[in-house]
Amino acid sequence: MVFCFLFYSIAERNLLKGVTCILTSVKELHIISNGKMPIEQLCEIVMDIHPYVTAIHLREKQKTARELFQAVELLSAANLPLSKVIINDRADVALVTKAGGVQLAFHSLDAAIIKENFPQLRVGSSIHSYEEGQQAKENGTDYVLYGHVFPSQSKPGMTPKGLNELTRLTQLAIPVIAIGGITPENTGQVLHAGAKGIAVMSGVLEALDPLSAVKAYLNVLKNGDGYNGRII
Amino acid sequence: MVFCFLFYSIAERNLLKGVTCILTSVKELHIISNGKMPIEQLCEIVMDIHPYVTAIHLREKQKTARELFQAVELLSAANLPLSKVIINDRADVALVTKAGGVQLAFHSLDAAIIKENFPQLRVGSSIHSYEEGQQAKENGTDYVLYGHVFPSQSKPGMTPKGLNELTRLTQLAIPVIAIGGITPENTGQVLHAGAKGIAVMSGVLEALDPLSAVKAYLNVLKNGDGYNGRII
Repeated sequence: MVFCFLFYSIAERNLLKGVTCILTSVKELHIISNGKMPIEQLCEIVMDIHPYVTAIHLREKQKTARELFQAVELLSAANLPLSKVIINDRADVALVTKAGGVQLAFHSLDAAIIKENFPQLRVGSSIHSYEEGQQAKENGTDYVLYGHVFPSQSKPGMTPKGLNELTRLTQLAIPVIAIGGITPENTGQVLHAGAKGIAVMSGVLEALDPLSAVKAYLNVLKNGDGYNGRII
Repeated sequence: MVFCFLFYSIAERNLLKGVTCILTSVKELHIISNGKMPIEQLCEIVMDIHPYVTAIHLREKQKTARELFQAVELLSAANLPLSKVIINDRADVALVTKAGGVQLAFHSLDAAIIKENFPQLRVGSSIHSYEEGQQAKENGTDYVLYGHVFPSQSKPGMTPKGLNELTRLTQLAIPVIAIGGITPENTGQVLHAGAKGIAVMSGVLEALDPLSAVKAYLNVLKNGDGYNGRII
């Protein structure tokens, strides 16, 4: 703990650029797959960006369990550490692939039940309101994924939640990862609202240069409270 | 083992009618849900028939994990022992509900992977050919569900596999549960082909009197090699 604190302080002073730094107190960068991109293409991007991100979420609602399993195998072959893999909904796939966690939606198994049965999994809950955040916290989820905060191309025509509701949610004392329309330009506002991190889909996966996009997000995350990954 | 053998012999002589008899050497009767019937209606039927069947399969492809979980809770409240519940595809739902097993299709996780990670689950593999049966056996599945053997209303226009292929499959020395168009009238032929048991969907769930239908199947199963459930 003391070591971590010291390490963190030093990193803040930019004295240890280029050294891997895993800290619980720093900001997180989650990348969410979009369910459209071929896994081989996702793997090519992941091969470049994985040292700089907290997690890669496989959010592939049309894929079968067998296809998800194969996707994790491909990602692992692309050097993505399994601890950084988060599987959407399917706890069984997460368990057998030794993935780091599972992301639960309203239609998924309850977070409390997953935590009770599979304590080895990091559990995230996707929520859309303060009340759902309260419920998720009571259920013992490890973090909530909240959105969409800003207008998002994956939620056309839907009113974004905005920063005020995000600020209210972060008072619940549960890590909040903000999602939806987040750009390097507005990431600072999200952090200022109290978010523990951000989750990005098209902002990285549809960028002309995904690695540069990741680094642009990272620069803001680092200038906030730090960053959960390699300091660049 | 000696006790089982003796018990079985006595039952065969009809000296112990009405006594529960769980034997590994006897025939099985699986009931498969059809994905259309409201769970409450399924529960009403299950409440009547469960003492006489080996397993109830929840094959509800449109249901979410949360809905499947709730369905198991309702079935359990209808007195169905959890050991008789088999969940289609979702091993995670089977695990957290303490269901007896999971039924795997080609698109599911591999039987070998499920057995390795969750040895507490009875694993069935749905197959459609001798070659798939060989593969399933190599993968360590506990039984195969093979069909459709006869013309079936749930497989309109598709050529049934027939009894010859079923007979060939039962040479693989893995328990074969036959499915597809099975009636009390043709159950004897299926047993003669070497099947360990039968799986029925509409023959019971769409019968005017499901309990009478179950008993009609049971009479044939008992007159074969016995029956895995209560002797009536």
